[in-house]
Amino acid sequence: VPPADKMRALAPLLRSGSKIVAIGRNYKAHAKELGNAVPSAPFFFLKPTSAYITDGMAIEVPPACTELHHEVELGVVIGRGGRDIAPGEAMDHVTGYVLALDMTARSLQEEAKKAGLPWTAAKGYDTFCPVSAFIDKGRLPDPQNVRLWLSVNGETRQDGTTADMIFPIPQLIAAVSSVMTLQTGDLILTGTPAGVGPVRAGDTVECGLADGLVRMSFPVVQRRASRL
Amino acid sequence: VPPADKMRALAPLLRSGSKIVAIGRNYKAHAKELGNAVPSAPFFFLKPTSAYITDGMAIEVPPACTELHHEVELGVVIGRGGRDIAPGEAMDHVTGYVLALDMTARSLQEEAKKAGLPWTAAKGYDTFCPVSAFIDKGRLPDPQNVRLWLSVNGETRQDGTTADMIFPIPQLIAAVSSVMTLQTGDLILTGTPAGVGPVRAGDTVECGLADGLVRMSFPVVQRRASRL
Ligand SMILES: [Mg+2]
Ligand SMILES: [Mg+2]
Ligand SMILES: [Mg+2]
Repeated sequence: VPPADKMRALAPLLRSGSKIVAIGRNYKAHAKELGNAVPSAPFFFLKPTSAYITDGMAIEVPPACTELHHEVELGVVIGRGGRDIAPGEAMDHVTGYVLALDMTARSLQEEAKKAGLPWTAAKGYDTFCPVSAFIDKGRLPDPQNVRLWLSVNGETRQDGTTADMIFPIPQLIAAVSSVMTLQTGDLILTGTPAGVGPVRAGDTVECGLADGLVRMSFPVVQRRASRL
Repeated sequence: VPPADKMRALAPLLRSGSKIVAIGRNYKAHAKELGNAVPSAPFFFLKPTSAYITDGMAIEVPPACTELHHEVELGVVIGRGGRDIAPGEAMDHVTGYVLALDMTARSLQEEAKKAGLPWTAAKGYDTFCPVSAFIDKGRLPDPQNVRLWLSVNGETRQDGTTADMIFPIPQLIAAVSSVMTLQTGDLILTGTPAGVGPVRAGDTVECGLADGLVRMSFPVVQRRASRL
Protein backbone atom coordinates (compact mmCIF):
# COMPACT_ATOMS: atom_id res chain seq x y z
CA VAL A 1 0.00 0.00 0.00
CA PRO A 2 1.34 3.42 -0.97
CA PRO A 3 2.73 5.69 1.72
CA ALA A 4 0.22 8.34 2.70
CA ASP A 5 2.50 11.25 1.83
CA LYS A 6 2.93 10.15 -1.79
CA MET A 7 -0.78 9.66 -2.23
CA ARG A 8 -1.38 13.25 -1.11
CA ALA A 9 -0.36 14.24 -4.61
CA LEU A 10 -3.66 12.84 -5.80
CA ALA A 11 -6.62 15.18 -5.72
CA PRO A 12 -9.16 14.66 -2.92
CA LEU A 13 -11.58 13.79 -5.71
CA LEU A 14 -9.55 10.80 -6.76
CA ARG A 15 -8.84 9.71 -3.21
CA SER A 16 -12.54 9.63 -2.39
CA GLY A 17 -13.61 8.05 -5.68
CA SER A 18 -14.90 4.54 -5.46
CA LYS A 19 -14.39 3.17 -8.93
CA ILE A 20 -12.11 3.03 -11.92
CA VAL A 21 -13.89 2.16 -15.16
CA ALA A 22 -11.52 1.23 -17.97
CA ILE A 23 -12.54 1.18 -21.62
CA GLY A 24 -11.19 -1.64 -23.78
CA ARG A 25 -9.96 -1.32 -27.39
CA ASN A 26 -10.73 2.33 -27.97
CA TYR A 27 -7.96 2.87 -30.53
CA LYS A 28 -8.11 0.90 -33.80
CA ALA A 29 -4.36 0.34 -34.05
CA HIS A 30 -4.26 -1.11 -30.52
CA ALA A 31 -7.23 -3.44 -31.05
CA LYS A 32 -5.49 -4.77 -34.15
CA GLU A 33 -2.05 -5.22 -32.57
CA LEU A 34 -3.55 -7.74 -30.11
CA GLY A 35 -5.55 -9.48 -32.85
CA ASN A 36 -8.91 -8.24 -31.54
CA ALA A 37 -11.90 -6.96 -33.46
CA VAL A 38 -12.64 -3.23 -33.36
CA PRO A 39 -15.69 -2.91 -31.09
CA SER A 40 -18.99 -1.59 -32.41
CA ALA A 41 -19.89 -0.14 -29.01
CA PRO A 42 -17.71 0.76 -26.00
CA PHE A 43 -17.07 -2.05 -23.51
CA PHE A 44 -15.40 -1.69 -20.14
CA PHE A 45 -14.10 -3.37 -17.00
CA LEU A 46 -13.41 -2.26 -13.43
CA LYS A 47 -10.08 -1.81 -11.69
CA PRO A 48 -10.09 -1.47 -7.87
CA THR A 49 -8.97 1.84 -6.37
CA SER A 50 -6.54 -0.18 -4.23
CA ALA A 51 -4.43 -0.33 -7.41
CA TYR A 52 -3.66 3.41 -7.36
CA ILE A 53 -0.06 4.55 -7.08
CA THR A 54 1.46 7.84 -8.16
CA ASP A 55 4.67 9.30 -9.62
CA GLY A 56 7.85 7.63 -8.38
CA MET A 57 6.25 4.65 -6.71
CA ALA A 58 7.03 1.10 -7.82
CA ILE A 59 4.97 -0.94 -10.27
CA GLU A 60 4.96 -4.57 -9.11
CA VAL A 61 5.17 -7.66 -11.33
CA PRO A 62 2.85 -10.26 -9.72
CA PRO A 63 4.36 -13.70 -9.08
CA ALA A 64 1.82 -15.44 -11.34
CA CYS A 65 2.36 -13.03 -14.25
CA THR A 66 4.77 -13.97 -17.02
CA GLU A 67 4.00 -10.89 -19.13
CA LEU A 68 3.13 -7.51 -17.61
CA HIS A 69 2.12 -4.87 -20.17
CA HIS A 70 2.00 -1.08 -20.05
CA GLU A 71 -0.99 0.79 -21.48
CA VAL A 72 -0.77 4.58 -21.29
CA GLU A 73 -4.19 6.26 -21.17
CA LEU A 74 -5.94 9.54 -20.59
CA GLY A 75 -8.01 9.34 -17.40
CA VAL A 76 -11.20 11.38 -17.06
CA VAL A 77 -12.17 12.42 -13.53
CA ILE A 78 -15.88 12.73 -12.78
CA GLY A 79 -16.90 15.84 -10.86
CA ARG A 80 -20.67 15.75 -10.79
CA GLY A 81 -22.10 12.24 -10.81
CA GLY A 82 -25.00 11.01 -12.86
CA ARG A 83 -26.86 8.20 -14.51
CA ASP A 84 -27.96 7.90 -18.15
CA ILE A 85 -25.88 10.97 -18.97
CA ALA A 86 -26.53 12.20 -22.52
CA PRO A 87 -23.42 12.66 -24.70
CA GLY A 88 -24.27 16.34 -25.15
CA GLU A 89 -24.14 16.95 -21.40
CA ALA A 90 -21.28 14.58 -20.58
CA MET A 91 -18.47 17.14 -20.46
CA ASP A 92 -20.35 19.07 -17.75
CA HIS A 93 -19.79 16.04 -15.51
CA VAL A 94 -15.99 16.11 -16.01
CA THR A 95 -13.86 18.05 -13.52
CA GLY A 96 -10.44 17.17 -14.88
CA TYR A 97 -7.98 14.54 -16.01
CA VAL A 98 -5.02 12.40 -15.02
CA LEU A 99 -2.42 10.63 -17.06
CA ALA A 100 -2.75 6.95 -16.15
CA LEU A 101 -1.35 3.52 -16.85
CA ASP A 102 -3.70 0.58 -17.20
CA MET A 103 -1.15 -2.05 -16.17
CA THR A 104 -2.22 -5.45 -17.44
CA ALA A 105 -1.06 -8.98 -16.61
CA ARG A 106 -1.36 -9.91 -20.29
CA SER A 107 -0.60 -13.59 -19.71
CA LEU A 108 -3.41 -13.84 -17.13
CA GLN A 109 -5.76 -11.82 -19.33
CA GLU A 110 -5.19 -14.16 -22.29
CA GLU A 111 -5.97 -17.17 -20.08
CA ALA A 112 -9.10 -15.47 -18.78
CA LYS A 113 -10.26 -14.58 -22.31
CA LYS A 114 -9.85 -18.17 -23.47
CA ALA A 115 -11.71 -19.54 -20.47
CA GLY A 116 -14.50 -16.94 -20.60
CA LEU A 117 -13.51 -15.76 -17.11
CA PRO A 118 -13.41 -12.21 -15.66
CA TRP A 119 -10.48 -9.91 -16.44
CA THR A 120 -10.45 -8.71 -12.84
CA ALA A 121 -7.22 -10.22 -11.51
CA ALA A 122 -5.36 -9.52 -14.78
CA LYS A 123 -6.28 -5.84 -14.44
CA GLY A 124 -6.60 -5.44 -10.68
CA TYR A 125 -3.35 -6.18 -8.86
CA ASP A 126 -1.97 -3.62 -6.43
CA THR A 127 0.06 -0.93 -8.29
CA PHE A 128 -1.78 -1.61 -11.59
CA CYS A 129 -3.18 1.93 -11.79
CA PRO A 130 -0.40 4.53 -11.69
CA VAL A 131 -1.86 8.03 -12.05
CA SER A 132 -0.50 11.56 -12.22
CA ALA A 133 -1.55 14.42 -10.02
CA PHE A 134 -4.94 15.88 -10.90
CA ILE A 135 -5.12 18.13 -13.96
CA ASP A 136 -7.86 20.70 -13.76
CA LYS A 137 -10.20 20.74 -16.75
CA GLY A 138 -9.17 24.29 -17.68
CA ARG A 139 -5.58 23.17 -18.20
CA LEU A 140 -6.58 20.66 -20.92
CA PRO A 141 -9.08 22.58 -23.05
CA ASP A 142 -9.00 20.09 -25.95
CA PRO A 143 -8.84 16.60 -24.38
CA GLN A 144 -9.66 15.00 -27.72
CA ASN A 145 -6.48 16.29 -29.30
CA VAL A 146 -3.62 15.61 -26.93
CA ARG A 147 -0.43 13.57 -27.24
CA LEU A 148 0.33 10.76 -24.79
CA TRP A 149 3.57 8.80 -24.83
CA LEU A 150 5.38 6.09 -22.87
CA SER A 151 8.95 4.86 -22.85
CA VAL A 152 10.68 1.90 -21.20
CA ASN A 153 14.32 2.44 -20.23
CA GLY A 154 14.39 5.50 -22.45
CA GLU A 155 13.04 3.76 -25.56
CA THR A 156 9.71 5.07 -26.89
CA ARG A 157 7.03 2.39 -26.94
CA GLN A 158 3.78 4.33 -27.24
CA ASP A 159 3.29 7.74 -28.86
CA GLY A 160 -0.30 8.47 -29.77
CA THR A 161 -2.98 11.09 -29.74
CA THR A 162 -6.42 11.08 -28.16
CA ALA A 163 -7.67 12.25 -31.57
CA ASP A 164 -7.51 8.56 -32.56
CA MET A 165 -10.09 7.34 -30.03
CA ILE A 166 -12.85 5.29 -31.66
CA PHE A 167 -15.43 6.52 -29.13
CA PRO A 168 -14.75 10.04 -27.82
CA ILE A 169 -15.11 10.95 -24.15
CA PRO A 170 -18.80 12.01 -24.24
CA GLN A 171 -19.77 8.65 -25.77
CA LEU A 172 -17.77 6.81 -23.13
CA ILE A 173 -19.45 8.68 -20.29
CA ALA A 174 -22.86 8.02 -21.83
CA ALA A 175 -22.13 4.31 -22.27
CA VAL A 176 -20.77 3.76 -18.77
CA SER A 177 -23.51 5.76 -17.07
CA SER A 178 -26.18 3.79 -18.94
CA VAL A 179 -25.00 0.79 -16.89
CA MET A 180 -23.64 2.18 -13.62
CA THR A 181 -24.19 5.53 -11.94
CA LEU A 182 -21.05 7.65 -12.07
CA GLN A 183 -20.05 9.31 -8.79
CA THR A 184 -17.78 12.16 -7.79
CA GLY A 185 -14.16 11.02 -7.95
CA ASP A 186 -14.74 8.10 -10.26
CA LEU A 187 -12.10 7.69 -12.95
CA ILE A 188 -12.68 6.61 -16.55
CA LEU A 189 -9.64 5.27 -18.39
CA THR A 190 -10.22 5.98 -22.07
CA GLY A 191 -8.18 3.22 -23.71
CA THR A 192 -4.64 2.98 -25.01
CA PRO A 193 -3.02 3.75 -28.37
CA ALA A 194 -0.85 1.16 -30.13
CA GLY A 195 2.54 0.06 -28.86
CA VAL A 196 1.69 -1.87 -25.68
CA GLY A 197 4.37 -4.29 -24.58
CA PRO A 198 6.14 -5.97 -21.67
CA VAL A 199 7.96 -4.47 -18.71
CA ARG A 200 10.21 -6.45 -16.38
CA ALA A 201 11.62 -6.00 -12.88
CA GLY A 202 14.46 -3.50 -13.09
CA ASP A 203 12.88 -1.47 -15.92
CA THR A 204 11.96 2.19 -15.65
CA VAL A 205 8.69 3.31 -17.21
CA GLU A 206 8.31 6.98 -18.13
CA CYS A 207 5.25 8.58 -19.61
CA GLY A 208 3.89 11.99 -20.40
CA LEU A 209 0.96 14.02 -21.59
CA ALA A 210 0.94 16.93 -24.04
CA ASP A 211 4.11 19.02 -24.21
CA GLY A 212 5.42 18.65 -20.67
CA LEU A 213 2.02 19.07 -18.96
CA VAL A 214 2.69 15.75 -17.18
CA ARG A 215 5.83 13.68 -17.01
CA MET A 216 6.21 10.82 -14.56
CA SER A 217 8.43 7.83 -13.89
CA PHE A 218 7.96 4.42 -12.26
CA PRO A 219 10.48 1.73 -11.37
CA VAL A 220 9.32 -1.86 -11.97
CA VAL A 221 9.95 -4.41 -9.20
CA GLN A 222 9.10 -8.05 -8.57
CA ARG A 223 6.29 -8.71 -6.09
CA ARG A 224 7.09 -11.58 -3.76
CA ALA A 225 4.72 -14.55 -3.62
CA SER A 226 2.19 -14.46 -0.80
CA ARG A 227 2.09 -17.09 1.90
CA LEU A 228 -0.84 -18.78 0.15
CA VAL B 1 -29.75 6.07 -7.14
CA PRO B 2 -31.12 4.99 -3.78
CA PRO B 3 -32.68 7.59 -1.51
CA ALA B 4 -30.30 8.59 1.26
CA ASP B 5 -32.66 7.58 4.05
CA LYS B 6 -32.91 4.00 2.86
CA MET B 7 -29.16 3.69 2.53
CA ARG B 8 -28.75 4.74 6.17
CA ALA B 9 -29.67 1.18 7.03
CA LEU B 10 -26.26 0.14 5.75
CA ALA B 11 -23.39 0.26 8.19
CA PRO B 12 -20.94 3.17 7.83
CA LEU B 13 -18.39 0.49 6.99
CA LEU B 14 -20.24 -0.54 3.90
CA ARG B 15 -21.05 3.01 2.87
CA SER B 16 -17.38 3.97 2.95
CA GLY B 17 -16.13 0.76 1.32
CA SER B 18 -14.70 1.11 -2.13
CA LYS B 19 -15.04 -2.34 -3.59
CA ILE B 20 -17.21 -5.39 -3.89
CA VAL B 21 -15.27 -8.54 -4.77
CA ALA B 22 -17.51 -11.40 -5.85
CA ILE B 23 -16.34 -15.02 -5.95
CA GLY B 24 -17.50 -17.15 -8.88
CA ARG B 25 -18.62 -20.79 -8.70
CA ASN B 26 -17.96 -21.45 -5.03
CA TYR B 27 -20.66 -24.12 -4.65
CA LYS B 28 -20.31 -27.32 -6.70
CA ALA B 29 -24.02 -27.72 -7.40
CA HIS B 30 -24.21 -24.16 -8.76
CA ALA B 31 -21.14 -24.52 -11.00
CA LYS B 32 -22.71 -27.65 -12.48
CA GLU B 33 -26.20 -26.18 -13.00
CA LEU B 34 -24.71 -23.60 -15.41
CA GLY B 35 -22.54 -26.22 -17.13
CA ASN B 36 -19.28 -24.82 -15.74
CA ALA B 37 -16.26 -26.68 -14.40
CA VAL B 38 -15.67 -26.64 -10.63
CA PRO B 39 -12.72 -24.26 -10.16
CA SER B 40 -9.41 -25.50 -8.74
CA ALA B 41 -8.69 -22.09 -7.17
CA PRO B 42 -11.01 -19.20 -6.28
CA PHE B 43 -11.65 -16.66 -9.04
CA PHE B 44 -13.44 -13.38 -8.68
CA PHE B 45 -14.80 -10.24 -10.30
CA LEU B 46 -15.66 -6.71 -9.16
CA LYS B 47 -19.06 -5.11 -8.79
CA PRO B 48 -19.22 -1.31 -8.37
CA THR B 49 -20.50 0.06 -5.06
CA SER B 50 -22.93 2.16 -7.12
CA ALA B 51 -24.90 -1.09 -7.43
CA TYR B 52 -25.83 -1.16 -3.71
CA ILE B 53 -29.45 -1.05 -2.71
CA THR B 54 -31.06 -2.28 0.49
CA ASP B 55 -34.26 -3.89 1.81
CA GLY B 56 -37.42 -2.74 0.06
CA MET B 57 -35.78 -0.91 -2.82
CA ALA B 58 -36.39 -1.95 -6.44
CA ILE B 59 -34.17 -4.27 -8.46
CA GLU B 60 -34.08 -3.01 -12.06
CA VAL B 61 -34.10 -5.16 -15.20
CA PRO B 62 -31.74 -3.41 -17.68
CA PRO B 63 -33.15 -2.73 -21.16
CA ALA B 64 -30.46 -4.85 -22.84
CA CYS B 65 -30.98 -7.83 -20.53
CA THR B 66 -33.25 -10.67 -21.64
CA GLU B 67 -32.54 -12.82 -18.58
CA LEU B 68 -31.83 -11.37 -15.14
CA HIS B 69 -30.82 -13.96 -12.52
CA HIS B 70 -30.85 -13.94 -8.72
CA GLU B 71 -27.87 -15.30 -6.78
CA VAL B 72 -28.24 -15.21 -2.98
CA GLU B 73 -24.89 -15.01 -1.19
CA LEU B 74 -23.29 -14.45 2.18
CA GLY B 75 -21.31 -11.19 2.12
CA VAL B 76 -18.23 -10.77 4.30
CA VAL B 77 -17.42 -7.23 5.47
CA ILE B 78 -13.74 -6.37 5.94
CA GLY B 79 -12.92 -4.49 9.12
CA ARG B 80 -9.14 -4.28 9.19
CA GLY B 81 -7.58 -4.13 5.72
CA GLY B 82 -4.58 -6.06 4.56
CA ARG B 83 -2.56 -7.58 1.77
CA ASP B 84 -1.32 -11.16 1.42
CA ILE B 85 -3.49 -12.13 4.39
CA ALA B 86 -2.75 -15.69 5.55
CA PRO B 87 -5.79 -17.99 5.87
CA GLY B 88 -5.04 -18.51 9.56
CA GLU B 89 -5.34 -14.77 10.24
CA ALA B 90 -8.14 -14.01 7.79
CA MET B 91 -11.05 -14.06 10.24
CA ASP B 92 -9.35 -11.33 12.32
CA HIS B 93 -9.88 -9.02 9.32
CA VAL B 94 -13.64 -9.67 9.24
CA THR B 95 -15.95 -7.32 11.14
CA GLY B 96 -19.27 -8.77 10.11
CA TYR B 97 -21.60 -9.92 7.37
CA VAL B 98 -24.50 -9.00 5.14
CA LEU B 99 -26.97 -11.09 3.21
CA ALA B 100 -26.53 -10.08 -0.43
CA LEU B 101 -27.78 -10.72 -3.93
CA ASP B 102 -25.32 -10.92 -6.79
CA MET B 103 -27.81 -9.92 -9.48
CA THR B 104 -26.56 -11.06 -12.88
CA ALA B 105 -27.62 -10.17 -16.41
CA ARG B 106 -27.16 -13.80 -17.42
CA SER B 107 -27.82 -13.17 -21.10
CA LEU B 108 -25.10 -10.48 -21.20
CA GLN B 109 -22.73 -12.65 -19.14
CA GLU B 110 -23.11 -15.56 -21.56
CA GLU B 111 -22.32 -13.25 -24.49
CA ALA B 112 -19.27 -11.88 -22.64
CA LYS B 113 -18.02 -15.38 -21.81
CA LYS B 114 -18.28 -16.48 -25.43
CA ALA B 115 -16.47 -13.37 -26.67
CA GLY B 116 -13.76 -13.46 -23.96
CA LEU B 117 -14.94 -10.05 -22.73
CA PRO B 118 -15.23 -8.70 -19.16
CA TRP B 119 -18.21 -9.63 -17.00
CA THR B 120 -18.41 -6.08 -15.70
CA ALA B 121 -21.63 -4.83 -17.31
CA ALA B 122 -23.38 -8.18 -16.75
CA LYS B 123 -22.61 -7.90 -13.02
CA GLY B 124 -22.44 -4.14 -12.52
CA TYR B 125 -25.72 -2.42 -13.35
CA ASP B 126 -27.30 -0.12 -10.78
CA THR B 127 -29.34 -2.12 -8.22
CA PHE B 128 -27.37 -5.33 -8.91
CA CYS B 129 -26.09 -5.58 -5.33
CA PRO B 130 -28.96 -5.63 -2.83
CA VAL B 131 -27.61 -6.04 0.71
CA SER B 132 -29.10 -6.35 4.19
CA ALA B 133 -28.24 -4.17 7.15
CA PHE B 134 -24.87 -4.96 8.71
CA ILE B 135 -24.66 -8.09 10.89
CA ASP B 136 -22.02 -7.85 13.58
CA LYS B 137 -19.57 -10.76 13.62
CA GLY B 138 -20.70 -11.81 17.09
CA ARG B 139 -24.23 -12.43 15.82
CA LEU B 140 -23.04 -15.03 13.31
CA PRO B 141 -20.52 -17.13 15.26
CA ASP B 142 -20.39 -19.96 12.70
CA PRO B 143 -20.49 -18.31 9.25
CA GLN B 144 -19.51 -21.57 7.60
CA ASN B 145 -22.66 -23.30 8.74
CA VAL B 146 -25.58 -21.02 7.99
CA ARG B 147 -28.68 -21.39 5.85
CA LEU B 148 -29.44 -18.92 3.06
CA TRP B 149 -32.59 -19.00 0.98
CA LEU B 150 -34.37 -17.06 -1.75
CA SER B 151 -37.89 -17.14 -3.12
CA VAL B 152 -39.58 -15.48 -6.10
CA ASN B 153 -43.28 -14.66 -5.68
CA GLY B 154 -43.36 -16.94 -2.66
CA GLU B 155 -41.84 -19.97 -4.43
CA THR B 156 -38.52 -21.19 -3.04
CA ARG B 157 -35.74 -21.08 -5.61
CA GLN B 158 -32.54 -21.32 -3.56
CA ASP B 159 -32.13 -23.00 -0.17
CA GLY B 160 -28.53 -23.81 0.66
CA THR B 161 -25.95 -23.74 3.40
CA THR B 162 -22.57 -22.04 3.55
CA ALA B 163 -21.23 -25.43 4.69
CA ASP B 164 -21.22 -26.32 0.97
CA MET B 165 -18.72 -23.66 -0.11
CA ILE B 166 -15.83 -25.14 -2.09
CA PHE B 167 -13.39 -22.57 -0.68
CA PRO B 168 -14.23 -21.37 2.83
CA ILE B 169 -14.05 -17.71 3.84
CA PRO B 170 -10.41 -17.69 5.04
CA GLN B 171 -9.23 -19.10 1.69
CA LEU B 172 -11.27 -16.48 -0.17
CA ILE B 173 -9.77 -13.63 1.83
CA ALA B 174 -6.28 -15.03 1.27
CA ALA B 175 -6.85 -15.42 -2.47
CA VAL B 176 -8.32 -11.95 -3.00
CA SER B 177 -5.72 -10.19 -0.86
CA SER B 178 -2.91 -11.90 -2.77
CA VAL B 179 -4.07 -9.84 -5.76
CA MET B 180 -5.61 -6.66 -4.35
CA THR B 181 -5.24 -5.03 -0.94
CA LEU B 182 -8.44 -5.33 1.06
CA GLN B 183 -9.62 -2.14 2.77
CA THR B 184 -12.04 -1.28 5.55
CA GLY B 185 -15.60 -1.56 4.29
CA ASP B 186 -14.82 -3.77 1.32
CA LEU B 187 -17.35 -6.55 0.75
CA ILE B 188 -16.60 -10.08 -0.41
CA LEU B 189 -19.51 -12.00 -1.91
CA THR B 190 -18.81 -15.67 -1.26
CA GLY B 191 -20.68 -17.33 -4.13
CA THR B 192 -24.17 -18.74 -4.54
CA PRO B 193 -25.69 -22.17 -3.91
CA ALA B 194 -27.71 -23.96 -6.62
CA GLY B 195 -31.09 -22.77 -7.82
CA VAL B 196 -30.29 -19.52 -9.63
CA GLY B 197 -32.92 -18.46 -12.13
CA PRO B 198 -34.74 -15.59 -13.81
CA VAL B 199 -36.73 -12.73 -12.31
CA ARG B 200 -39.00 -10.43 -14.29
CA ALA B 201 -40.54 -7.00 -13.82
CA GLY B 202 -43.47 -7.39 -11.43
CA ASP B 203 -41.85 -10.20 -9.42
CA THR B 204 -41.08 -10.00 -5.71
CA VAL B 205 -37.80 -11.46 -4.51
CA GLU B 206 -37.51 -12.46 -0.86
CA CYS B 207 -34.44 -13.87 0.82
CA GLY B 208 -33.19 -14.69 4.26
CA LEU B 209 -30.28 -15.82 6.37
CA ALA B 210 -30.29 -18.35 9.22
CA ASP B 211 -33.54 -18.67 11.19
CA GLY B 212 -34.94 -15.19 10.86
CA LEU B 213 -31.64 -13.36 11.43
CA VAL B 214 -32.24 -11.53 8.15
CA ARG B 215 -35.30 -11.41 5.96
CA MET B 216 -35.68 -8.91 3.14
CA SER B 217 -37.81 -8.26 0.10
CA PHE B 218 -37.29 -6.52 -3.26
CA PRO B 219 -39.73 -5.65 -6.03
CA VAL B 220 -38.42 -6.11 -9.58
CA VAL B 221 -39.06 -3.30 -12.07
CA GLN B 222 -38.12 -2.54 -15.67
CA ARG B 223 -35.37 0.05 -16.16
CA ARG B 224 -36.14 2.42 -18.97
CA ALA B 225 -33.69 2.73 -21.86
CA SER B 226 -31.28 5.64 -21.61
CA ARG B 227 -31.20 8.41 -24.17
CA LEU B 228 -28.17 6.79 -25.80
MG1 LIG C 1 -6.41 -0.28 -21.21
MG1 LIG D 1 -14.39 -7.97 -14.89
MG1 LIG E 1 -22.42 -14.81 -7.61
